[in-house]
Amino acid sequence: MAERMIVIGGDAAGMAAAAQARRSRGRDDLEIVAFERGHFTSYSACGIPYWISGLVPDRDQLIARDPTTHREKFGIDVRLRHEVVAIDLDRREVTAVDLTGGREIREPFDILMYATGAVPTTPDWARTDVAGVFGVQTLDDGSALRSWLDADPPPKRAVVVGGGYIGVEMAEALVLRGLSVTLVERAEQPMSTVDPDMARLVTDAMRGLGVDIRTGVQVTGLSEHDGRVDAVRTDAGSIPADVVVLGLGVRPNTALAEAAGLPIGPTGGLRVDRQMRVAGVPGVWAGGDCVETLHRVSGMPVHVPLGTHANKQGRVAGINIGGGYATFAGVIGTAVTKVCDLEVGRTGLRERDALAAGFEFVSVIAESTNRAGYYPGARPMTVKLIAERPSGRLLGAQIVGWSEAAKRIDTLAVALWNRMTVDDMTALDLGYAPPYSPAWDPVLVAARKAVDALAR
Amino acid sequence: MAERMIVIGGDAAGMAAAAQARRSRGRDDLEIVAFERGHFTSYSACGIPYWISGLVPDRDQLIARDPTTHREKFGIDVRLRHEVVAIDLDRREVTAVDLTGGREIREPFDILMYATGAVPTTPDWARTDVAGVFGVQTLDDGSALRSWLDADPPPKRAVVVGGGYIGVEMAEALVLRGLSVTLVERAEQPMSTVDPDMARLVTDAMRGLGVDIRTGVQVTGLSEHDGRVDAVRTDAGSIPADVVVLGLGVRPNTALAEAAGLPIGPTGGLRVDRQMRVAGVPGVWAGGDCVETLHRVSGMPVHVPLGTHANKQGRVAGINIGGGYATFAGVIGTAVTKVCDLEVGRTGLRERDALAAGFEFVSVIAESTNRAGYYPGARPMTVKLIAERPSGRLLGAQIVGWSEAAKRIDTLAVALWNRMTVDDMTALDLGYAPPYSPAWDPVLVAARKAVDALAR
Repeated sequence: MAERMIVIGGDAAGMAAAAQARRSRGRDDLEIVAFERGHFTSYSACGIPYWISGLVPDRDQLIARDPTTHREKFGIDVRLRHEVVAIDLDRREVTAVDLTGGREIREPFDILMYATGAVPTTPDWARTDVAGVFGVQTLDDGSALRSWLDADPPPKRAVVVGGGYIGVEMAEALVLRGLSVTLVERAEQPMSTVDPDMARLVTDAMRGLGVDIRTGVQVTGLSEHDGRVDAVRTDAGSIPADVVVLGLGVRPNTALAEAAGLPIGPTGGLRVDRQMRVAGVPGVWAGGDCVETLHRVSGMPVHVPLGTHANKQGRVAGINIGGGYATFAGVIGTAVTKVCDLEVGRTGLRERDALAAGFEFVSVIAESTNRAGYYPGARPMTVKLIAERPSGRLLGAQIVGWSEAAKRIDTLAVALWNRMTVDDMTALDLGYAPPYSPAWDPVLVAARKAVDALAR
Repeated sequence: MAERMIVIGGDAAGMAAAAQARRSRGRDDLEIVAFERGHFTSYSACGIPYWISGLVPDRDQLIARDPTTHREKFGIDVRLRHEVVAIDLDRREVTAVDLTGGREIREPFDILMYATGAVPTTPDWARTDVAGVFGVQTLDDGSALRSWLDADPPPKRAVVVGGGYIGVEMAEALVLRGLSVTLVERAEQPMSTVDPDMARLVTDAMRGLGVDIRTGVQVTGLSEHDGRVDAVRTDAGSIPADVVVLGLGVRPNTALAEAAGLPIGPTGGLRVDRQMRVAGVPGVWAGGDCVETLHRVSGMPVHVPLGTHANKQGRVAGINIGGGYATFAGVIGTAVTKVCDLEVGRTGLRERDALAAGFEFVSVIAESTNRAGYYPGARPMTVKLIAERPSGRLLGAQIVGWSEAAKRIDTLAVALWNRMTVDDMTALDLGYAPPYSPAWDPVLVAARKAVDALAR
C-alpha cells in the first residue's frame, strides 16, 4: 500500500520537497497531499515589489508552478484555501479547514512535511481594521495592496514602516508608481543588513530617489478617516498617509508545530537535523522560513527567511523522503538587493555579528570601479571585508556599487564558504577584461588591503 | 652602498615588481633602473581594442602610470626607447641600446627583473614591408594601427587573421568604426578558448554583428598595390583588404634570456620558482608574459599571457626583492571577454585540456537566465561545467550570456580554486534577488545537472 505524505504550506520548501520526493517515488508508492491556505502555490514572494511597481506587468508571472502543474505533472493533490489547524502526532493525522466552505477534514499521514513559512512581525498598532494597511509577505497580501493602489483616485502618499529589504524595495516600488513615499525606521539607518558605513551609501541613494527617510523614529499608531488610514502617528509627529506598508520583518510560523509539541530552537524556528528531519520526530520533516538553520561562520543557529534556502531545504527533505541521502549544509548569510540603481550585496558576518560570535577581526573598505577606469560606464564600487585576526580568515563581506556590483558578492561567498584567508584570496585567478574590472579586481584590491591591515 | 635593480620591460610585471620593492626599500637602499624599448610604461594592452573602436576616446587613458609618476613617486629611473640587447650573468651587467640615438650603454646590476613580455606569432607571409599590416600587442602597435585607420580617406575593408580574444575583440572594434570586416580562422571555429559547443554561440553573435567569418581557411600571403596591402590571399581565395590585423597569438619573449643561458621550460616560457626567481639563478627574477606558470588543475606548466597574472607575479617578485616573502600560487585559466553584447567567461580546463591532462569527466550544459525569468531584461545564460568522474571535482567551467553573465565565472573560479565537487557546489549560498538571478542560480542549476550526470 502507498505511503501518504502531507505537506503543510504550498510554497517553495513544501512543493520542492513534494516534487523531489515524486522524482524517486511513483504515485503507486507515495500519495502526496498539499494544503495551502492562500490562493497560490510556488510563487516568488521576492518578486512582489516588482509587480507592485509595475516593472513586472502580470501577477501570474510570479507563479513558478500553479496547482494544475503540481497535480498533472507531479501527481500532487494540492488543496488551495485549506488551512491546517492541528497536527496529531500520535494518530498521525492533520485537521484542515476549507476556508471557502468552512468544512473541517482530517487526513492521515505517514510522512509530514511542515513548511508553513513565516509570519510578519505585527506591532499592536498595526492590529487594526483600518483599511489601507498592508503587509507584503504573501501574494495574497500583494494582491490586496495592488488593488488599493489601483483605486480611482489612487492613493498619493505612502508610508513604509521598517527599512529592511522589503521596506526598502517597497519604498522604491511606490516611488516608481508615482507616490510620495516616507520611510520610517526605528534604528539610526535603514538597511541594517549591512554595516552602517555601507548602509549610508544606500540611504543616500534612496534620498536621491526622493524617498523621505525618517530614522530614529518609532511608530505609535494610526489615524483614520471613515475607516481608512489617513496618517501614521510617531514619537516625532504625525505623517499623512493614504496607504501604509509594513516591512517589519518576519518570524517563523510555528504556532501549529508548538501546539503539536515539535521542538523549537532559540531563534524561534523549528529545530531540524542535517537531513531536514524535525529533530527527534520520526517521519516529520520541515524546511523553509519556519525552520532555523546553522550559520557556517558563527556556528550558531539562525533564522534566515529566503527562497533560495527554502528551495534547497525542500529539495534535501524530498531526496531523503524519496529514499536517497542529502543534507543541508547551512547558510552563510548571502543576500543581494537593488535600491534604485544601487546594488547591495552581503555575505557572512557583519561587524556586529562577528563581535557577537566572539571573533577578533579587522575590517577594511576598498574603493574601486566595476570596469577598467577608462572603460565607458565605469562606476564606483565599494567592497568591505571583515577578516579574523590574526588568522586572516574571511568572516564577512559587503559590496555596494552602481552597476554589475551586487552579484560579485558570490565570489566572496564562495571564498568564505571555503574558509579562505584574505592572504589566500589575493592569489585568486579572477576574470579580467576592461569591460568587467580594473586589472586588479575590486575583490583582490580589498583582500590586499585586509592583508595590510592584519600586518599592522 | 645601495644595491642596484635593473628591470627589463616597463609594463605590468616589471613595474609592479619595481614599485613593490620600493615599498620596503628606500632610494638609499635600492637603486632601480627600468629599460623599456617602447614609448610607454604600465599601460593596459587589453584596452587597445576599445581605443581603436573609439569607445575609449584618448590613448593616454590606457596608461596607468607614466614614466614621470614612476620617477617621482617611486624613484624608478625609467628609460624609454632603450632596448636591452644582452645580459651578462657573470659580470652582472646588461647592455642596452638607446633606440633614439643608437648609443650603447652598459649597466651593472645586483638584482635583475626580467619582464620582456610576449612577442606576437608572425607567420612568414606577415614578415613584410607592405604597409597596412598591424599587430596589436603593444601600445606602439595600436598607435600605428590607429593612425592608419584615421587616414583620409579611411580604409574600408579589414581582414582580421586569427580568432582568439584579440582577433575577436579587434573584429568588433573595426565593425564599430564602420569598416566591413572579415575574420579568417584556420580552425573550425573562432574563440577556441572555450569548447566548440560554447564557441558556436559566440560565432553566431559575431555574424549577427555583420562580421564575415571564414573558418577552416589558411592565409597564404598578401597582395599589395603601391606598397600598400590590398588583399589577403588564402587557400580559399583572395579577400580584399585595406587593412590587415594580426591576432595569431603570442609566445614568451625569451630571446635575450636564452642567449644568457636562463632556463626555458616546455611551454617556451622562462622557468621560475614559486617566489618568481628564475629557477636556479640567484638574483634574477622574472614575471609576466615571458614566464611559464603552474596550472593548478592540470598540474602542468602553462603559458597564460594576461595582465592580471603579470601584475600578481610582479608584486610577488617585488615583495621578495624587498626582503619579504610571497609566492605565486599558479593559475586556473580564468578569462572573460565581450563580443558585441555577448559575454564569455571561462575557468579551468576545457574538454580538450581535461583529456590531455588524463582526467575522466562528465560535462553538462545548463540553460538559465541572468535574472528571474519574469524580471525585465532577463536574458539567456548558458553555463557549462566539466567535472571529474567519479570524484565530482570541478575541472572547468564556461559561461556565455547576454548581460551580467561573464563575471559570474568568478564564482566558479573560486569554487574550482578550492577543489570543490559539483555536489558540494549545489549547497552554495549565493546571492538571490529577482534582478540578479532566478531562485535557483544558474551556477547551482548547472551543478545539479552535473551531479545528475555523474550518477548516471
